[in-house]
Amino acid sequence: MHSVGICGSDVHYWQHGRIADFVVKKPMVLGHEAAGTVTKVGEMVKHLKPGDRVAIEPGVPRETDEFCKIGRYNLTPSIFFCATPPDDGNLCRFYKHNADFCYKLPDNVTFEEGALIEPLSVGIYACRRGSVSLGKKVLVCGAGPVGMVTLLVAKAMGAAQVLVTDLSSSRLAKAKEVGADFTLQITKESPLEIANKVESMLGSKPEVTIECTGAESSIQTGIYATRSGGTLVIVGMGPEMVNLPLMHAAVREVDIKGVFRYCNTWPMAISMLASKTLNVKPLVTHRFPLEKAVEAFETSKKGVGLKVMIKCDPNDQNP
Amino acid sequence: MHSVGICGSDVHYWQHGRIADFVVKKPMVLGHEAAGTVTKVGEMVKHLKPGDRVAIEPGVPRETDEFCKIGRYNLTPSIFFCATPPDDGNLCRFYKHNADFCYKLPDNVTFEEGALIEPLSVGIYACRRGSVSLGKKVLVCGAGPVGMVTLLVAKAMGAAQVLVTDLSSSRLAKAKEVGADFTLQITKESPLEIANKVESMLGSKPEVTIECTGAESSIQTGIYATRSGGTLVIVGMGPEMVNLPLMHAAVREVDIKGVFRYCNTWPMAISMLASKTLNVKPLVTHRFPLEKAVEAFETSKKGVGLKVMIKCDPNDQNP
Amino acid sequence: MHSVGICGSDVHYWQHGRIADFVVKKPMVLGHEAAGTVTKVGEMVKHLKPGDRVAIEPGVPRETDEFCKIGRYNLTPSIFFCATPPDDGNLCRFYKHNADFCYKLPDNVTFEEGALIEPLSVGIYACRRGSVSLGKKVLVCGAGPVGMVTLLVAKAMGAAQVLVTDLSSSRLAKAKEVGADFTLQITKESPLEIANKVESMLGSKPEVTIECTGAESSIQTGIYATRSGGTLVIVGMGPEMVNLPLMHAAVREVDIKGVFRYCNTWPMAISMLASKTLNVKPLVTHRFPLEKAVEAFETSKKGVGLKVMIKCDPNDQNP
Amino acid sequence: MHSVGICGSDVHYWQHGRIADFVVKKPMVLGHEAAGTVTKVGEMVKHLKPGDRVAIEPGVPRETDEFCKIGRYNLTPSIFFCATPPDDGNLCRFYKHNADFCYKLPDNVTFEEGALIEPLSVGIYACRRGSVSLGKKVLVCGAGPVGMVTLLVAKAMGAAQVLVTDLSSSRLAKAKEVGADFTLQITKESPLEIANKVESMLGSKPEVTIECTGAESSIQTGIYATRSGGTLVIVGMGPEMVNLPLMHAAVREVDIKGVFRYCNTWPMAISMLASKTLNVKPLVTHRFPLEKAVEAFETSKKGVGLKVMIKCDPNDQNP
Repeated sequence: MHSVGICGSDVHYWQHGRIADFVVKKPMVLGHEAAGTVTKVGEMVKHLKPGDRVAIEPGVPRETDEFCKIGRYNLTPSIFFCATPPDDGNLCRFYKHNADFCYKLPDNVTFEEGALIEPLSVGIYACRRGSVSLGKKVLVCGAGPVGMVTLLVAKAMGAAQVLVTDLSSSRLAKAKEVGADFTLQITKESPLEIANKVESMLGSKPEVTIECTGAESSIQTGIYATRSGGTLVIVGMGPEMVNLPLMHAAVREVDIKGVFRYCNTWPMAISMLASKTLNVKPLVTHRFPLEKAVEAFETSKKGVGLKVMIKCDPNDQNP
Repeated sequence: MHSVGICGSDVHYWQHGRIADFVVKKPMVLGHEAAGTVTKVGEMVKHLKPGDRVAIEPGVPRETDEFCKIGRYNLTPSIFFCATPPDDGNLCRFYKHNADFCYKLPDNVTFEEGALIEPLSVGIYACRRGSVSLGKKVLVCGAGPVGMVTLLVAKAMGAAQVLVTDLSSSRLAKAKEVGADFTLQITKESPLEIANKVESMLGSKPEVTIECTGAESSIQTGIYATRSGGTLVIVGMGPEMVNLPLMHAAVREVDIKGVFRYCNTWPMAISMLASKTLNVKPLVTHRFPLEKAVEAFETSKKGVGLKVMIKCDPNDQNP
Repeated sequence: MHSVGICGSDVHYWQHGRIADFVVKKPMVLGHEAAGTVTKVGEMVKHLKPGDRVAIEPGVPRETDEFCKIGRYNLTPSIFFCATPPDDGNLCRFYKHNADFCYKLPDNVTFEEGALIEPLSVGIYACRRGSVSLGKKVLVCGAGPVGMVTLLVAKAMGAAQVLVTDLSSSRLAKAKEVGADFTLQITKESPLEIANKVESMLGSKPEVTIECTGAESSIQTGIYATRSGGTLVIVGMGPEMVNLPLMHAAVREVDIKGVFRYCNTWPMAISMLASKTLNVKPLVTHRFPLEKAVEAFETSKKGVGLKVMIKCDPNDQNP
Repeated sequence: MHSVGICGSDVHYWQHGRIADFVVKKPMVLGHEAAGTVTKVGEMVKHLKPGDRVAIEPGVPRETDEFCKIGRYNLTPSIFFCATPPDDGNLCRFYKHNADFCYKLPDNVTFEEGALIEPLSVGIYACRRGSVSLGKKVLVCGAGPVGMVTLLVAKAMGAAQVLVTDLSSSRLAKAKEVGADFTLQITKESPLEIANKVESMLGSKPEVTIECTGAESSIQTGIYATRSGGTLVIVGMGPEMVNLPLMHAAVREVDIKGVFRYCNTWPMAISMLASKTLNVKPLVTHRFPLEKAVEAFETSKKGVGLKVMIKCDPNDQNP
């Protein structure tokens, strides 16, 4: 392994030993945002050879079930997924992974860019589920890491205007830097009031809303704010039960779609990074050698900066 | 006009003078499930001539706005719609309608079949929004008139198994008669328990659930019952706010889609009726001449039978 | 193995030793339309156990490449496919197959129905590629075995009218029996003349044309006959180069789509057979025990009847 | 009217009096790439008022037929279209147009940008028909005006790599300037050889090919070059009959889709221009006042520069 990013879920497992029904019952290797170099391949593998630099897609179906067959392999219940208990992750020196889920990196894509494909994939998949495309107006609720990559991807897909909301003005300032056309700081307004503000700032309701906070009020805002016939994508994880103005969505045919991780994002993400369609390098704000992993996790836990990278190759600590 | 069916909304306007924000402020002609004979056409009309028998689509866009242009004309806010105040309906002897929304009936399709295209359209559109297709398993919540046409259409689209739920055993008996593969009477089980029963009866979760009751618990059932990657279609109108296990839908990518009336259903409904793919004739259980309209409405209000038809042509009271 | 149908390709390999670039270079077991009983399963297999009756999907991807990942596994170049050289088929007593591509048959679906899912899949997939659905008008060119299952499936999907063309009046008579709404015998008319006849018989141009002959003139007919905005599906194999009125298709936005075998058809075909949505039993006209396989192939070669079944289980020669 | 661009078809009608079956039988006003200022509106018009600056979509359906209703209004046979005989265009001082097809320009979008939406729409629609999206590889055949806007739009949609082919090295040089990732000059290679070169330059076959030349050999190249499961979009007009390796497309499921003008492009083009997602200003290389229209047409006919604009407002000759 060369570079492995730390995700919020890694920190959560480290601190709490569980996320929802996934409980850490025995020691588990963390890490699922990773890139490295091939050292050995099985005899059937043709598309890779030792020395190839690869990005690793952490979810690998264990069987070819109905979901895999229709191209939605992220939904297969028995999937192996790095650092989701009981499956080990890849924050280590050497790691064995299904070759079909290792993707060769071109020379002009760095290991860190390769590792960042994982968080980027969340944004790609959310935008794809929402049918973001050229000329569309998009509302992104939440300017955390997920909201940020969603914003980046929406702009790369040609969205005309992206408006980002958040409680924090400093996060919104970063969103603006990264390319948000508009930002809106949420204070005490009701969901309906926020929806009206969004419409007035964008000149019309957005065709797509991507909700990345999980907050009930923000999901309600998403329903009120989205244009008739549009889509509200639920990315943020919230409470089990939420109170929603469902009929308001239903009679205006605002579709409500969730996401579970992602699928089919690595090859196109690599093409995109190779062609410099998108610049993810600024997302990495901290780097630590594997020996200082605890320090790296402490930094990530503090929430300073954006992405903390752990450098696993003692001979090469470059990006 | 020849035959006009009475819809629950007609009865509601008659009794209560309003539905949600639509308020009857001056005398209004009721009726929007209609078929009749052309007596005159404008000079630009080429596809119709006096004497043609036609079915009438009650919703006619007043302008060609963004929704019309993308083929979702039902969403255009300024649409004219028969018997939705302040727009008059067509329960009368003579009526003027945009020729582009009058569809010629083949000789082997009766006026009453023509009038029934309106309620049938709700089922067609709901099934289409849910992507019902050959071999799919479908859950229909509610065995009222809408649930019943949805069942009929789902089977006509090739659905392998349709399971219908309702509180009433007599309604379920009718659903069985009309073609339901399974029925399930709802008593005191929780939504999760009902979902488990549905799965066990069908052998696997249904790919599509079409919710026609509007009841909160039934919508919750729809979320729990639908297969990952499937669709829950919201047809029934319920309370403004509902409490939902949204995350349960989101992480399994069960899309939640509403419907507003319908669009693009008349031509295919006529093809279908002409080819006898679907038999809607048994839906008509009562007939009254226009002179006895009050009696007809009283009958419909009582809820006996299924569809009450009002015969507007004094010279022809045939189906 | 219990029942294995003989396909035209089996006969072709037997007689000619090759189809296009697929050359039989060493002895090869024929057969790819098959159903049987599980005798043993690998230890990871959970959905099957010895004694289960199963239908076998003959194509099994050897790797999870980009095509598999997006749900179009039929396009993966390295796919294993029964009885396509050099891969052995399953016309034998015992056979080992990837469990994920063996589908359990419900008690009310016979082995022969299970074996017929393979030819049926060609029709399902062609209709799906053409977006056949409720109320559509469909033109099927060719009343051979593929045209016939396509007709069956189109009707099961709710197509309002299916018109079948062929050179042979006896084949068309069979198509009529099986459910064709219209048939048209091709004689000396030009493609444009045939297209006009089709339009006049159906009352309007069909939205979908499924071409099952491979003949240049028939493909041309398909372009002229299909409604603007519709789809022409190319199923029949023809000469390498064909002369086409491409601009006629292009400016009317008639999409031209091919098919390569099929994918994602077994589970829904089984649901469909279990619910009796479709009756394929009459397709089997001849049965031979495995010992008389040569006689079975001779019968199939002669083209008498429709489908010849070989019964591989010496203890059970029932359907 | 303020600014009207000259299109190749305008020059063709001027010189030859016809294009295919469209024959100029009486004096006809040319021009269909236009923007101007509203001077009067009908009493039903609410979204526009005198003084509003608008871009004009030249095609306006005359009736709401089946194609309009499904959102493909470009296919309606009776459509009015500026400067397609016998319909007059808008290269004049004052012009009356259906208000629903006049789109208000934001202050930061110039009249000329508004007029350029028409040619841009061809590229938008072609890319949309080909499902160009983030990370895709795209082959554009032909570096003329249509190829050029297609390239611009493909990059704006996030295409990772666009390769443009042409016979002319100077046109390819321009394509490179405008953003082509690769260019390939066609000389004497066979279509198969060109397809191989394309694959080797892009690292893999493109998912989408957009053919803008109409040349038989280039369409053949498109079939060989496109990735299995991808799409070949036919934009260029060619001879009535073309000889094609159709089976090569069919068995690899390369869909062949044509385009007829465009639909649903103006609102998103305006959003896009307002947000500076795309810069079309450099496309205008020449400007003439309306009085010098003949000179403008002579310039356009010579093929020097890219787009010639005619300025119709004597009081404002600005972009």
